[in-house]
Amino acid sequence: MNPQPTSTPPDIIRAAYAELIVTDLAESRAFYVGVLGLVVTYEDDEAIYLRAFEEYLHHSLVLRLGPVAALAALAYRVRSQDEVAVAADYYRELGARVEPRPAGATRGVGEAVRVEDPLGFPVEFFYDSEHVERFTRRYDVHGAGAISRLDHFNVMTPDVEAARAYHEGLGFTVSEDIQDAEGTTYAAWMYRKPTVHDVALTGGDGPRLHHIAFATHEQHQILHICDHLGALRQSDKIERGPGRHGVSNAFYLYLRDPDGHRIEIYTQDYYTGDPDNPTLTWDVHDNQRRDWWGNPVVPSWYSEASAVLDLDGVVRPLVARTEPAEAAVTIGADGFSYTREGEPIPEYKLGHQL
Amino acid sequence: MNPQPTSTPPDIIRAAYAELIVTDLAESRAFYVGVLGLVVTYEDDEAIYLRAFEEYLHHSLVLRLGPVAALAALAYRVRSQDEVAVAADYYRELGARVEPRPAGATRGVGEAVRVEDPLGFPVEFFYDSEHVERFTRRYDVHGAGAISRLDHFNVMTPDVEAARAYHEGLGFTVSEDIQDAEGTTYAAWMYRKPTVHDVALTGGDGPRLHHIAFATHEQHQILHICDHLGALRQSDKIERGPGRHGVSNAFYLYLRDPDGHRIEIYTQDYYTGDPDNPTLTWDVHDNQRRDWWGNPVVPSWYSEASAVLDLDGVVRPLVARTEPAEAAVTIGADGFSYTREGEPIPEYKLGHQL
Amino acid sequence: MNPQPTSTPPDIIRAAYAELIVTDLAESRAFYVGVLGLVVTYEDDEAIYLRAFEEYLHHSLVLRLGPVAALAALAYRVRSQDEVAVAADYYRELGARVEPRPAGATRGVGEAVRVEDPLGFPVEFFYDSEHVERFTRRYDVHGAGAISRLDHFNVMTPDVEAARAYHEGLGFTVSEDIQDAEGTTYAAWMYRKPTVHDVALTGGDGPRLHHIAFATHEQHQILHICDHLGALRQSDKIERGPGRHGVSNAFYLYLRDPDGHRIEIYTQDYYTGDPDNPTLTWDVHDNQRRDWWGNPVVPSWYSEASAVLDLDGVVRPLVARTEPAEAAVTIGADGFSYTREGEPIPEYKLGHQL
Amino acid sequence: MNPQPTSTPPDIIRAAYAELIVTDLAESRAFYVGVLGLVVTYEDDEAIYLRAFEEYLHHSLVLRLGPVAALAALAYRVRSQDEVAVAADYYRELGARVEPRPAGATRGVGEAVRVEDPLGFPVEFFYDSEHVERFTRRYDVHGAGAISRLDHFNVMTPDVEAARAYHEGLGFTVSEDIQDAEGTTYAAWMYRKPTVHDVALTGGDGPRLHHIAFATHEQHQILHICDHLGALRQSDKIERGPGRHGVSNAFYLYLRDPDGHRIEIYTQDYYTGDPDNPTLTWDVHDNQRRDWWGNPVVPSWYSEASAVLDLDGVVRPLVARTEPAEAAVTIGADGFSYTREGEPIPEYKLGHQL
Repeated sequence: MNPQPTSTPPDIIRAAYAELIVTDLAESRAFYVGVLGLVVTYEDDEAIYLRAFEEYLHHSLVLRLGPVAALAALAYRVRSQDEVAVAADYYRELGARVEPRPAGATRGVGEAVRVEDPLGFPVEFFYDSEHVERFTRRYDVHGAGAISRLDHFNVMTPDVEAARAYHEGLGFTVSEDIQDAEGTTYAAWMYRKPTVHDVALTGGDGPRLHHIAFATHEQHQILHICDHLGALRQSDKIERGPGRHGVSNAFYLYLRDPDGHRIEIYTQDYYTGDPDNPTLTWDVHDNQRRDWWGNPVVPSWYSEASAVLDLDGVVRPLVARTEPAEAAVTIGADGFSYTREGEPIPEYKLGHQL
Repeated sequence: MNPQPTSTPPDIIRAAYAELIVTDLAESRAFYVGVLGLVVTYEDDEAIYLRAFEEYLHHSLVLRLGPVAALAALAYRVRSQDEVAVAADYYRELGARVEPRPAGATRGVGEAVRVEDPLGFPVEFFYDSEHVERFTRRYDVHGAGAISRLDHFNVMTPDVEAARAYHEGLGFTVSEDIQDAEGTTYAAWMYRKPTVHDVALTGGDGPRLHHIAFATHEQHQILHICDHLGALRQSDKIERGPGRHGVSNAFYLYLRDPDGHRIEIYTQDYYTGDPDNPTLTWDVHDNQRRDWWGNPVVPSWYSEASAVLDLDGVVRPLVARTEPAEAAVTIGADGFSYTREGEPIPEYKLGHQL
Repeated sequence: MNPQPTSTPPDIIRAAYAELIVTDLAESRAFYVGVLGLVVTYEDDEAIYLRAFEEYLHHSLVLRLGPVAALAALAYRVRSQDEVAVAADYYRELGARVEPRPAGATRGVGEAVRVEDPLGFPVEFFYDSEHVERFTRRYDVHGAGAISRLDHFNVMTPDVEAARAYHEGLGFTVSEDIQDAEGTTYAAWMYRKPTVHDVALTGGDGPRLHHIAFATHEQHQILHICDHLGALRQSDKIERGPGRHGVSNAFYLYLRDPDGHRIEIYTQDYYTGDPDNPTLTWDVHDNQRRDWWGNPVVPSWYSEASAVLDLDGVVRPLVARTEPAEAAVTIGADGFSYTREGEPIPEYKLGHQL
Repeated sequence: MNPQPTSTPPDIIRAAYAELIVTDLAESRAFYVGVLGLVVTYEDDEAIYLRAFEEYLHHSLVLRLGPVAALAALAYRVRSQDEVAVAADYYRELGARVEPRPAGATRGVGEAVRVEDPLGFPVEFFYDSEHVERFTRRYDVHGAGAISRLDHFNVMTPDVEAARAYHEGLGFTVSEDIQDAEGTTYAAWMYRKPTVHDVALTGGDGPRLHHIAFATHEQHQILHICDHLGALRQSDKIERGPGRHGVSNAFYLYLRDPDGHRIEIYTQDYYTGDPDNPTLTWDVHDNQRRDWWGNPVVPSWYSEASAVLDLDGVVRPLVARTEPAEAAVTIGADGFSYTREGEPIPEYKLGHQL
């Protein structure tokens, strides 16, 4: 593709919704509505449209029935309807496949455009959207694990530096990243809205969706989701956490939905909205970078991710990462991590045994 | 020893204090006072006497300088000074070594008695104790991880059934235990005060001290202790958790102090004070028994524990457990665990990989 | 009555259940089940039997349909079935009216005894009770304001000193009280289980029921109940709080049910189970005694309370308090309160304006 | 002044710092550092420069010693240094007094401009600022009431509609407001950063500073500040709350500093960053508008506010509000409030008695 378009990129506000292909709507509903408590805006035999309690657009998550679990689209909201056309022009100049979407192509969404971005992801840009009731103060239906809003996407891509440059071209800024002394970048967090990220780039074979993340207000709401899954004898849906991230400083939990899509529940990162917001770079060997408490990253968290579809609905082939893998350089015989630089991690830390 | 004394056991109120031998008072102080925020009642070059914010007795933890990290005593409070003599008589009939302690033998404690109990632990019974200021409402000195009181002891002993019978003789009641279908008991939780336990019996080579536990009021106070250790670059002191126990339903965290003594921070178990409080038995293969969220028990948590001293201050030799070990029957090639009975645990659960 | 019985009092474990007469079961259900989230053990056209999430006895609250909102009984659990007869004998010697109750007279409760106590309250003593599922770990049905258990009763009685002496005779101990320099007692908190109280005595015209209190685990659960009532446009059911008590140090909220019965939601008082637990006496003029933050006590909280029935179901006449009223001595022209002894409270504190 | 400038307004990012005149630095320090836990960036005999834990600019609050407690400046950060000149031009065209400030005129701040805005407030626009350590992860110094960042200003001004129009000219958007059926506006909340507000306009005699607000992450941190003040016997510094706002849905607390300046502690409003964020208008008679739980607004909260200085340091005279006062139309003989429209508020709600 053309790496340096001269036209103006669309003015992106934020990560706005994801469309996931799921293979059993009833099972997905039990997870997203029954456990996570998301609000159903609309549902039929083909799809469920969900939003969190403080959202007033039609949906922040679409679960669409399909034969293979995959990501169908990541949608960013742009600042006005005119910016949809700006996006189309920008991606055409990039040489990307661009597909206009009439109003209603996705229920509740106006005229939009979908592209296959240079990293291989199906990305939508939209502005017009149906407004629905904002449940901010509907405490009568907020459960103990109430979710406020969609926060971000995390995508797996082989070349993080290239992905970062592409997103900088779109107007994203890096808040934090993970590197090594040789300059390899393992992951980067990039934002449009003034939080730590709207999209995170995770180094690995791609294009794959690593996860999408929803925000709660308080930490105890995340703990409750764990307790709830335990009560349902579904604790095996908890993949990693809860814990405190080093990167972002957010409190987190990673779940796996019935199709294996990874969902993060996340709270309390920090404000990044000033232009001189300091970028924070973590050493890949710092054992507190991904969990501030030094708790281990489960191997599946590094290796597994959701397939993504092209605009024809066909699963994209993977491109392998050629740079070192974060898991390999941090654990096992060929890697190392430290709590205090220069000091080994004691035997009883679980990460040691993996 | 005489397994069936006919005399009356002492009327024990609760687990009241532990005396630990530590090898560096300054390092221990940095942990117990600097991180855990315990209140110093008294300290000199030989020992530090600590209490939690809602305690009015002189101390609930004594850290005494010594050459080898070990447990010097577990102290139970009895209902009156007369019960100290009852305890002495009871243990003499048991055939245990019994040592009267004059007032002040431990600073702040009146006339007491120490015994070498049938399981090999050094145990003290006392009633008289100096009262000091109760810091319940001293929010000006409560940190973000404020600890309210000592909650329980957890001891490692080879034969849990024998240890249970001995404690039942002393008037303790089982709230919960872990067994297998063959009737092997892996652990039992026993109480005098109306909580889940004053003492837990953990099957393993013993006598060793598995941990002592302090209680907070809220979960976020436990999370803060983790954050605090991360800020100090001491996240390697976090051994296991935070998490929700299956047994006890408490929210928990296991730390290792500078000498390796294990300290649990614990909150929100339940009331057990009625005589018909139901006993709950867990299947050892239930993956939610020790962590309701199915997060793995780090191997060191099963294998490591503190040495205990006899009344001469000599480390007790260990007696090996001859019954199956909980770690062996639950993980690895010879063991198994389930989230839903009969179903395997998915690949991505960390416990699977240990 | 005979003020000094020589027979042994019953061995009371704790405050166990209350029976309230309500005038509209559907409205009461909307409050106790819909908002407070109590679990329905049984219900029919005449009554609803409720319990909190950690309780395994049949109920801790009975709502019985009747023509006039009132208290029908306060029930204490005793340590064994034999103690029910002990209670009957004790009250007969006291000269109180005593009424045996066959098993099932109250659904789920075995043979019991009800008395009209010397203060004029209908009090039940029972041991046998049907066990039901304990929902401790049923996080799938715990709402954001989950209630764990009944905690205490608070009764309004004219002569607090007499009421205190009567309860001391029954084996209760005072944890805290409110007095003035002249020795008048305005209120006292008395316990059997090792918390701050099973029963509080509030000076005022009586016998009336001031409130019954349920416990949550965390403060945010109490805040949610307020939010929930706001969402239902029923914030007018919030009478006082949330706040931090001075007395008991508990976090609290007072609600009024659809009949005006006052319900407290309460959490995090402290352990009182040692025999030498220090008694704390507050000066009635200390503005932090009832709210540690100095927020005002709404006048209705002092003046209003539920009628109580005798054992024939007839409303008891009131006996007026002859000693000074707490409201009168603390606010208004004839009273005063201080934050720091000797200093006036600033103009902008709300209590000043009442 | 010229109400309709044709030049471009400065691109304001957010409310960035306030400068308050205090009359005793030691007393102010005890409050802002000792209780609120703000971090001292610099202090000398004339001033203290403070920041919250997630802030990396030199300060978000300056306490400057002076003879009369007052507001010296409200400072907004603009998007670049060039915008400082844009601001100067804009206010000159408005006919406002404009005063350039050399770098360092306020310690840590670069070249800036101060103006006397059309409402009579001293307002600064700046971009350059010294960076200092961001204490986001310094949990070792975070207390139990940790404050994350400055959130907003609240100013008292007689004509809310005029003040709203002026701020709209500056690029602010209304998130919520309070009106009556006759169209009188009592208050409005306006934002630049995507939260509910950077500035709130409160109808009343002005110009006066109603309060400045700092944000925490969680509700319990606000509760702790109350507990802490109680422990210091300074509960009289709590003016109103804690509670849940109707407007903004934030959890709040209002304190009065040693000079009477009002400080709000605030958490968990909602995201407003999309252009079509719905504006919410509250009826002034809705008793849940200012407190979702219907708890009363203390009269001082409506009537008292801090004096403001002009650019010569002279206290500005007040202009009286001529439209109805919110307190007058909502309580007392001439006002009314409802919980459910059309229904009176019950006798026992405290607001009823004021």
